[in-house]
Amino acid sequence: MDKVLWKPGTMLYPAPLALVSCGDRPDNFNIITIAWAGTICSEPPMAFISVRPTRYSHEIIKKSGEFVINLPNVKLAFATDYCGVKSGREVNKFSQLKLTSLPAEHVKAPLIGECPINIECKVTDIRPLGSHDMFLARVLGIYADKKYIDKKTGALDLKAADLICYSHGKYYALGKQLGFFGYSIQKKKRR
Amino acid sequence: MDKVLWKPGTMLYPAPLALVSCGDRPDNFNIITIAWAGTICSEPPMAFISVRPTRYSHEIIKKSGEFVINLPNVKLAFATDYCGVKSGREVNKFSQLKLTSLPAEHVKAPLIGECPINIECKVTDIRPLGSHDMFLARVLGIYADKKYIDKKTGALDLKAADLICYSHGKYYALGKQLGFFGYSIQKKKRR
Repeated sequence: MDKVLWKPGTMLYPAPLALVSCGDRPDNFNIITIAWAGTICSEPPMAFISVRPTRYSHEIIKKSGEFVINLPNVKLAFATDYCGVKSGREVNKFSQLKLTSLPAEHVKAPLIGECPINIECKVTDIRPLGSHDMFLARVLGIYADKKYIDKKTGALDLKAADLICYSHGKYYALGKQLGFFGYSIQKKKRR
Repeated sequence: MDKVLWKPGTMLYPAPLALVSCGDRPDNFNIITIAWAGTICSEPPMAFISVRPTRYSHEIIKKSGEFVINLPNVKLAFATDYCGVKSGREVNKFSQLKLTSLPAEHVKAPLIGECPINIECKVTDIRPLGSHDMFLARVLGIYADKKYIDKKTGALDLKAADLICYSHGKYYALGKQLGFFGYSIQKKKRR
């Protein structure tokens, strides 16, 4: 427990990786990778993304008031990085990465077809904080790829979707399962 | 790309696991595990946690206006679950789990000694959203366990700290590294 004290910084890891798709018509569709993202409320379901005002997607999301959070998997690690470092001002990321834009139900922004989960979001508030503006949003709908859903029970096997995360400048697959919510207080069962 | 559309819910995973310590004197020190947490701004560094108003820690954090986000590792998976399902009204989690409370520099809330990273936070705003209140906070300081810091370069090897994450009701270790920020556009180097 020998600790060193550093000055303030961003060290809350692992962070999720949100492939945020935006735009209200095919010619302004774009994707931006956001690690400053998360769930902020369970009921109603709400999420946030924080975006630098200088980013191309910032103005698109501000104007349209909506976006989709698409969760990338291991196969999409390259695309996830690319969408975080390249600007939509210079390149069409859907065509460059051969990603499929699919129509969403509640928003004009497209779903990324290749992502196992897509979360439709409607902005409720934009909060300037400094380097980043925080977009608070209501979740309007969730899409899941049917191949991860048990046909009999309807249960989602999200582990099988191979989601990835971000920690201190690196991308990681998920590893070993260590337990489930509530396991620490569960009575021992017959095996 | 055969997708099913579900009603709104919380599906933005993986989420971080924040072991949030709070209290301003030893007799009200408590720990609550929060997955609805994240970085919201880089400069100034800011983070958030969302907490149900019914939780014991909610009032403590609201009154004291500060907390510490302690990042758990694989060894602390059991404690992470326990601090999420048990209430501080019923049990002293520090003593029950044999965790060490250490004094922090900028806040009265204690650090959890066993966690590889500790993030001191000062609440700037509380925002009621529904089931959860969102606490927005400035990061005041970061502690890192020296055993993860290279003595020569000062670089932090956060992978070696074995942080864990939360996805769809389960706890996971991190797995294989898939790349680093910027790798998709880096020119090939001599190997």
